[in-house]
Amino acid sequence: METLSAQKSHGGVQGVYRHVSVSCACPMTFAVYVPPLPENKKAPVLWYLSGLTCTHANVMDKGEYRAAAAKYGIILVAPDTSPRGENVPDEPDNWQFGCGAGFYLDATQPPFASHYRMESYILDDLPALVAAHFPVDPTRQGIFGHSMGGHGALTLALKHPDRFKTCSAFAPITQPMTADWSKGALAKYLGSDEASWRAYDATALIEDGKRFPEFLVDQGTADPFLDNGLRPWLLEEACAKANIPLTLNMREGYDHSYHFVSTFMAEHVAWHAARLG
Amino acid sequence: METLSAQKSHGGVQGVYRHVSVSCACPMTFAVYVPPLPENKKAPVLWYLSGLTCTHANVMDKGEYRAAAAKYGIILVAPDTSPRGENVPDEPDNWQFGCGAGFYLDATQPPFASHYRMESYILDDLPALVAAHFPVDPTRQGIFGHSMGGHGALTLALKHPDRFKTCSAFAPITQPMTADWSKGALAKYLGSDEASWRAYDATALIEDGKRFPEFLVDQGTADPFLDNGLRPWLLEEACAKANIPLTLNMREGYDHSYHFVSTFMAEHVAWHAARLG
Repeated sequence: METLSAQKSHGGVQGVYRHVSVSCACPMTFAVYVPPLPENKKAPVLWYLSGLTCTHANVMDKGEYRAAAAKYGIILVAPDTSPRGENVPDEPDNWQFGCGAGFYLDATQPPFASHYRMESYILDDLPALVAAHFPVDPTRQGIFGHSMGGHGALTLALKHPDRFKTCSAFAPITQPMTADWSKGALAKYLGSDEASWRAYDATALIEDGKRFPEFLVDQGTADPFLDNGLRPWLLEEACAKANIPLTLNMREGYDHSYHFVSTFMAEHVAWHAARLG
Repeated sequence: METLSAQKSHGGVQGVYRHVSVSCACPMTFAVYVPPLPENKKAPVLWYLSGLTCTHANVMDKGEYRAAAAKYGIILVAPDTSPRGENVPDEPDNWQFGCGAGFYLDATQPPFASHYRMESYILDDLPALVAAHFPVDPTRQGIFGHSMGGHGALTLALKHPDRFKTCSAFAPITQPMTADWSKGALAKYLGSDEASWRAYDATALIEDGKRFPEFLVDQGTADPFLDNGLRPWLLEEACAKANIPLTLNMREGYDHSYHFVSTFMAEHVAWHAARLG
């Protein structure tokens, strides 16, 4: 693991690191904030998954999470959103696919299957590295994210409730199988058989029996992607049928940007902290 | 005034605007955050002056001021750091002079005098525009800033204690007349007669009789510019001799970046709010 930067911030250290991911077969960059902690103390860890077009840097620069993470003593890890590099297949003119749009899945289709394995990266490569270098308590992990990353958090939590104790999301995609901006990506990553897409769709996972203790979701009412891309009511419906408690806060006048995310970031961190202990 | 963006954030509105400045003879971009306010209520205004290489965007993206500005009901204005544009003389390879390095002075030397008039811009053009478009209370104005902008805040406050009731700074340059990274700029903007520089040097202004009720300064001990560029002890000495109360907080382990600024931003906004009422 190479340290690209490490700066004191809100009493802790905000770092940016690079390592070679086996799953993604390329170097990957990620950010970790470690709050001020007593010597030899381990802390809960919150995984923050970012949205389409983002890297680790968007939430690090604009997410305003450090004051809350420092207050509650939580380590926050912000991975990249896809593999990147010269050898990684991409569609540079398509912001909804390829680099910056990994959708937190393991692709099965050539030429994407050899690099686009973000599910394995988030579940295996990165946690092993983070556990080796930072004082994380693996029994107290939460996951959250924004948009594509909010959906990634929902699906990973539903599939691994043993690993993740808490899950929340800002303006998550709720049903990528039927949303215009994600259907095409699922087809290219996973093939045309839509049955294989259900493992990477939050509402389908719930329909297929996956459960989680509770979700917290915030969604802006002025979000331009609300009606076509995000559709929180689909998650609301699925959770209601499955008796999964969902707190869905519709936030009047907020859009899809980090102005929205940063406004409610401290509440989300506090919510996770209260449950992770 | 043209609105480039306006987004709900922390209950208020973060906007970015452009107008043609008469003083700088070019279009200028600036950011304004308006907190949630009762109808017809006017709010105190805090002017935030940024440092070398910055635009209005650095503090808007990384400064983490909105939660505190919303809490205390304060309007925050973040101007650019220089005139910009094709007709504006510049030294593109020199980050300490020209575009991004206006030093909040009115240049007297050709070819810079026709555009580099940031003192007049901050004191005349921008306040008139802001007063016409935003609910500011002109009797309650404070000023602060970072690095070159921290110094700009100190000098403008010292010269206009009638206008600015409060002044604070993050890692300000304290004596640009003798600092390597600013001497050259002062010579090019103001000419070789160093007597003319004294109107744009905080410690010289104090030596020459200017006074201000009190200053708050935060400075990181791991700031790479501490010993050669910033030297807070020069301000401390000048304030002590002039009986100007100075609270100088040396912050262990912090550098010169927005990780430092954002960590202490809420404290500064609260400090101004307590004094502006």
